[in-house]
Amino acid sequence: MEALAVLKIECASELEEALTYYLQESYALAGLESRRRSDFEIASQRHDSTFVDLTKIENLPEDLELTAYLPVDVDQAQVCAQLQAKIRELAGYGLATGKVRVYFEAQALTNWETTWQENYPVINFSRHLAFVPVWQTYQPAYPDQAVIKLNSGLGFGTGEHLTTQLALLAMERYLTRPVKLADVGTGSGILAIAAAKMGQTDILATDISSQAIESARENATLNQLTTIRFQQGNLLEGVSEKFDLICANILAEILQEFSENLASYLTENGVAILSGIETRAYPALDEKLQKLGFKVKLHLNEERWHCLVVGR
Amino acid sequence: MEALAVLKIECASELEEALTYYLQESYALAGLESRRRSDFEIASQRHDSTFVDLTKIENLPEDLELTAYLPVDVDQAQVCAQLQAKIRELAGYGLATGKVRVYFEAQALTNWETTWQENYPVINFSRHLAFVPVWQTYQPAYPDQAVIKLNSGLGFGTGEHLTTQLALLAMERYLTRPVKLADVGTGSGILAIAAAKMGQTDILATDISSQAIESARENATLNQLTTIRFQQGNLLEGVSEKFDLICANILAEILQEFSENLASYLTENGVAILSGIETRAYPALDEKLQKLGFKVKLHLNEERWHCLVVGR
Repeated sequence: MEALAVLKIECASELEEALTYYLQESYALAGLESRRRSDFEIASQRHDSTFVDLTKIENLPEDLELTAYLPVDVDQAQVCAQLQAKIRELAGYGLATGKVRVYFEAQALTNWETTWQENYPVINFSRHLAFVPVWQTYQPAYPDQAVIKLNSGLGFGTGEHLTTQLALLAMERYLTRPVKLADVGTGSGILAIAAAKMGQTDILATDISSQAIESARENATLNQLTTIRFQQGNLLEGVSEKFDLICANILAEILQEFSENLASYLTENGVAILSGIETRAYPALDEKLQKLGFKVKLHLNEERWHCLVVGR
Repeated sequence: MEALAVLKIECASELEEALTYYLQESYALAGLESRRRSDFEIASQRHDSTFVDLTKIENLPEDLELTAYLPVDVDQAQVCAQLQAKIRELAGYGLATGKVRVYFEAQALTNWETTWQENYPVINFSRHLAFVPVWQTYQPAYPDQAVIKLNSGLGFGTGEHLTTQLALLAMERYLTRPVKLADVGTGSGILAIAAAKMGQTDILATDISSQAIESARENATLNQLTTIRFQQGNLLEGVSEKFDLICANILAEILQEFSENLASYLTENGVAILSGIETRAYPALDEKLQKLGFKVKLHLNEERWHCLVVGR
């Protein structure tokens, strides 16, 4: 396997969503990790019995630290300049940038397979579903738990994993019968693949990124699923079908845009599962959905992430 | 089958939880239904395309209407007097009572089997679980959906059903491996039975009411489940075990009381699923749980009902 260049970005956590999106869209990421000081602080409060001394955690980020893994031959100076420009642009939108550092580590990562294996453990997140990296062996506690195999290089951080899990919980609530289903911003294809594993046969999955579509197709093949229709495109633009269930696990800012046309893609009793909403972004989206005539049917919240099921 | 006396209580919806509890504890209820004006109003807003004219709904309650089904030979005058006294007591606690009417319908219900069948349809509420009244035939859309058979006379209203469903969604998230599990206030046994259906083998289910324990045992037998330990008692009083997962789908007021000793019944990483929390009762319980050192790990909200998964 080839080596990977390791890019570090330190800045205010307000930039996390925008930078995550920018990195995923702009570069051929092999992976992305996010560490936030607040997560460690929450963890330290959570375990009263095992007091965590924050001053003793190795490389505790000042606020947010993103680590992106890029092809080793990437033009490092250009990437750093582009990111600095992007951060200045975000500051222009009124976002706090904090103390900004953008740099590549001097040493490329050569043992990245091991690193992935540490960063992407089995995610045994629900009685009936688990995600298992393809290199892992996993014995479910129950024979009827569906195991979804995933390849590495998902480009997902821990936070995004949680939004995926909430979206899947909501799907379990709503997929009690076969429906016409769309997965918008499918990324590595997780939601579409899980839906197919749960017996859905009419699935359209879209993503603006051709790399994502390619990765999603690979993951579908890995799970012996051949019926999902993967299609490159922005949200559901140009799609003339209507859906009983639309899942969109994407940035809240994009959900804001998507919600404007959402009704036109839903069947009369159709519902949409909207995930990837950070606490900070939730009130504005909730207000917008209400103005558009949507009712929140189910609201899931875990840590700083929210998932809404909305219908009319 | 015998006939049933039909008791109607009209009052302010603030009394719903307290009266529901009082009725279930005090009388040999064959069943209980709850209708609230606000539910119809929400429904009328929800379906823009099929505008619901509230003035045309038959017997639209002014605020809350409870219908309780009692043995036909009950002392009707005594029941009415007891309920009027209970409502005066609740007014003394500062609860709004609204315009109160308590009366029995002149005609006893003789076709109650049909009525039950209308009021207790199949509840196909999750991809992997459905509740099916024992007299219904039900063909799941997917062969791996677990079907839980239930006998009539559950003494549950529609609202309580929703709290049960939220608790079950939370259970699906947390029951990824065998655990020591307690179901506190098991009622008809639904949560304990669902847990057993999902493969749990170490389950203690308690209820203060011996009628509930009897009904729960019958439902377990109906589902060929023999390992659940049913035990009459108040919450977990007198139980010396500790549990990895405690489910309590009971009134928020009782959850307040229960939360005080909750920690002593949980293993170190144990969590509790607390359901049955109305929006009005949520802030006080949330505050109390925080004061007791609990963290909310997952928060589910549907209509006016909340379910919290808490741990330390």
